[in-house]
Formats: sequence, C-alpha cells, structure tokens
Amino acid sequence: MQIITAIKEMQEKIAQYKHNGMTIGFVPTMGFLHEGHLSLVQEAKQKADLVVMSIFVNPLQFGPNEDYDRYPRDIVRDEQLAKNAGVDILFYPEVTEMYKDTRYFHISVSGLVDVLCGSKRPGHFDGVVTVLIKLFNIVLPTYAFFGKKDAQQVAVVMKMVEEFNFPIKIIPVETVREEDGLAKSSRNVYLTSEEKQEATVLYKSLQLAKTLIEEGETNSRSIIEKMTRFIQNHSQGNIDYIEIYSFPNLKPLPNLQGHVLVALAVRFTNVRLIDNILLEI
Amino acid sequence: MQIITAIKEMQEKIAQYKHNGMTIGFVPTMGFLHEGHLSLVQEAKQKADLVVMSIFVNPLQFGPNEDYDRYPRDIVRDEQLAKNAGVDILFYPEVTEMYKDTRYFHISVSGLVDVLCGSKRPGHFDGVVTVLIKLFNIVLPTYAFFGKKDAQQVAVVMKMVEEFNFPIKIIPVETVREEDGLAKSSRNVYLTSEEKQEATVLYKSLQLAKTLIEEGETNSRSIIEKMTRFIQNHSQGNIDYIEIYSFPNLKPLPNLQGHVLVALAVRFTNVRLIDNILLEI
Repeated sequence: MQIITAIKEMQEKIAQYKHNGMTIGFVPTMGFLHEGHLSLVQEAKQKADLVVMSIFVNPLQFGPNEDYDRYPRDIVRDEQLAKNAGVDILFYPEVTEMYKDTRYFHISVSGLVDVLCGSKRPGHFDGVVTVLIKLFNIVLPTYAFFGKKDAQQVAVVMKMVEEFNFPIKIIPVETVREEDGLAKSSRNVYLTSEEKQEATVLYKSLQLAKTLIEEGETNSRSIIEKMTRFIQNHSQGNIDYIEIYSFPNLKPLPNLQGHVLVALAVRFTNVRLIDNILLEI
Repeated sequence: MQIITAIKEMQEKIAQYKHNGMTIGFVPTMGFLHEGHLSLVQEAKQKADLVVMSIFVNPLQFGPNEDYDRYPRDIVRDEQLAKNAGVDILFYPEVTEMYKDTRYFHISVSGLVDVLCGSKRPGHFDGVVTVLIKLFNIVLPTYAFFGKKDAQQVAVVMKMVEEFNFPIKIIPVETVREEDGLAKSSRNVYLTSEEKQEATVLYKSLQLAKTLIEEGETNSRSIIEKMTRFIQNHSQGNIDYIEIYSFPNLKPLPNLQGHVLVALAVRFTNVRLIDNILLEI
C-alpha cells in the first residue's frame, strides 16, 4: 500500500493510473477505521481496478461546539487496517495541505440539509461538499463509496454529483452492525458499557418502524410516536430527532410510498449516535 | 465538427477520448464568436489533441437588470466560425439541460470579487464559477483557455482551479484588438459608429498608464486621475471604474510592483465596455 500526503503527488499518480485505463474506487473517510469502512473497501475492490482511501478529519464539517479536536484518531492502526483490507493507495493529507489560509470559494447546501442531522449541524454539509469536491478532483474516482449509516450524506453526495455533473458513480453501502444491531461508528468508543447496551434501542426502534409499516401503518407521526415511547422506555438516551422522509429528496411524505427513510439521532452522555433504515414500499 | 447538446452524450464521448489518451483543450464561450474567441481556439489547437468549445449563455451570471435576454446570439454563424477555426466538438446545451428547477448547491466567491466588475455585478462570478465547475466536469479538459480581456475572470478561474484542485491548466490568452486598439467584444455591435470611434479611449488610456509607469510613476491614484481626465476629454463615455491591482490576487498595491493589472470599464449609451493591461514591473 502506498501512502501519499501531497496533493500534487496524488494527482500525478492518479493521472498515470487513468492513463493506463484503470478504474478507481474511492473510499473517503475521517479515519479511526471500523468494519463499516472496511466493508466500503470490499465493495470498492469488487468494482474497481484500484482502491484509494482517504483519511482526513475535515475541520470544515465540524461546528464550533462539535468534537473536531477530540474526534478519535489512530493513524498507525488505520494504516494497518487499510493495508490488510487491500487498499492500494492511502491519501492522508495534513489540514494545511488541503486548506490555504484564504479560501475564496464558499459552498452552501440548501433544501436537503434543513432536516435530520443537517438541521442540528448548520454548515456541516457545506463542509462535507467542499472537501468532497476537492477529493473528487484529486482522486478522479470512477466510483465513490459511502456508508448508508449517514443516509443524509448519501443523499447530499448523490445530488451534488448530479448537480455539478461529476462523472462519478456514487455507491451506497449497507450499514455494518454489531450482533445486537448497534451500527458501527468511530464514536462508539465513547459509550460506557451500559450505554452501549442501551444504544441497541436505535436499531430496535427502527425494526419496530419497519414492522409497523409492513403491517400497513402509513401515518409517519404515529410511527414516530411509537418509536419515541420505545426508546424512552428502554434507555436513558435523549432523542435528538426521529424523522421519516422520501429518499434521496428528503421531503416529508403525506403517505409512506416509494423509497422511505426512517432516521434517528439519540444522545448519550458523551456521544450522539445516528442510525436509519431505507425501505422500499 | 461534432455538435453535442446533451450532457450525457458529451460525457460519454469525452470518456472515449480520454481512454485513448488524448489531451483536451477547452474554450468555454457564450457564443456570438469574434476573433478573440477564435484566437483561444488557435491556442487550444496548438496545445491539445482535441478542441472542445462550449456555447452557453449562462443565465446565472447575469444580474436581474443585466442583458441576458438581449445578449447577442447567432448559433448558425457561430457553428460556421467554430468549424472553420478547427473546433472538434461544439457543446451547445439548452438552459434546461444545464440547470434543473431545484438547485441545492450555491457557490459564493469572496475577496476577489469586491473590486472591478465584480463589485458592480453582485453574484456575477458566483454564476461563472458554478457553470465552470459543471463544464469542467463535463469536458474534463487538460487545458482551459480564457481571454485576458476579462482579467478578473482569469484571476477567479485560476484561484478556483487551485482551491478546488481541478487537474486543469488555465491558459490566459492575449486580448485581440481592432487596428485602432479597441478590444474585440460581442457587445461592440451595440456601439454607434461614433461611439465605436470614441471607445478607442479605453485602450489609449491604458497605453497612457503604461507610459506613465515606464517613466517611473508609482502612484496608482495619480495614474488613475490622468486616465480619467484623458477619457473625459476624448469621449462621452461614463467611467464605471478605473482600478489598479496586483494580479491574480486583485489587492491594492501601495507601490506598483510585480504583476500589475490596470483595468477599466466605460459605459456608452447601450453598452458597457471593459479592457485592461497586465504589466510586469
């Protein structure tokens, strides 16, 4: 596995591979890799000739009161995991390599981001889109792989690629879970063992929603109320949101039809967890 | 010469050419071609294997009180001129092909655009950058060619390519002029013959600035005052601005040193003309 930290070197390498007609699968990450990330790599290996992973904790997508400084980092372990998973090139730039002191161009996302996490994290997706435009131009991927766990991110990236005409296919990949259903997340390390147990309410409440919908429930509000009660009865987590939208347009659904996203965020003492399911009705 | 109107078809064609290892020279235009555009094509032909020209009058870069509707258009003549100049592919999309009803992503430019034309045309460069991101992703050029006549556009595009890491080399090309020095412009057709004569004051005043600087003048204000007097004494044009900045950062210069841009805009009855010179001091 090659490790590259300079944008220029990365672009030169990619130009060579492209020149040789190779397809490129790209897995952008913020590091502290877990099985979720590695499943993205497996998908990428199946689809593309060359797999590029980036590790970059992007300051632009953290709010002033968010956890940029204490976001978990372990590059030594990440390198080993990436190598074992079969990553060909690991792109690992410093913040100063990615952002100059003066930024002249500012991107703002509207519509898709006034719901779910976006509404709680103003500017978050502006930062995500900014770094992805840069990374896409550096890596020139044929395919880019994103975990469905951040469903809003998948929606924003799909729309972004469409609106700006990037010649890239976005591949959403299934969420990887613990045996008890808890979605893998870099932030899970901040849960106490009791909280980790309680945090299974996220997935269980999503399964409850699935069952209700399969049994014919079409009223979003009723489903959300039942999920809320379930979580409150079975954990000490504070619900940040439970929302149901169309996917990928993220619009409220008067009737549950088509691609339906049920998504939630729940806060425990030191950490906020998200999860979702995507249903075809 | 192939004429392509659909983004998808364009991207498929470009993928083929790229696959064959061809370099692509791109000349983005708003049509109503004149010798200035054709000189961009000549440069592109010298540098690249394949020359792509786009013709797209981009509504996003016109203000509500600007001349989008009456911007001159003549696609039949443009096709002939592009073909004769040696363009390989003419990309000519409709507005509805380029922009969907809902746009989720908005770009704003800061710093570079609060001077020169940018300060008089709020949002103009936001629109320019938006369409260029799209066109660059559609055409995937190795080189993109821009006339120096719009020096601020050259500066913005150079910074944009740098900040977003587009793997594209921007090539600024000399302004093409009439024998009397008037810069070629699609908007010149709106000048009366008397105004066309008077409009030579733009270039003459720039030559005056050049002479003053060569003779040792280092004070921008003094140069601007002399240019102003010259234009007022020799034409009925209304000066929109005369400004002197560093290039491409477009910052005021306490002393005239390095790459110096002297730029001006002058209004005649139905049309506003711009011109500039770039000096190395």
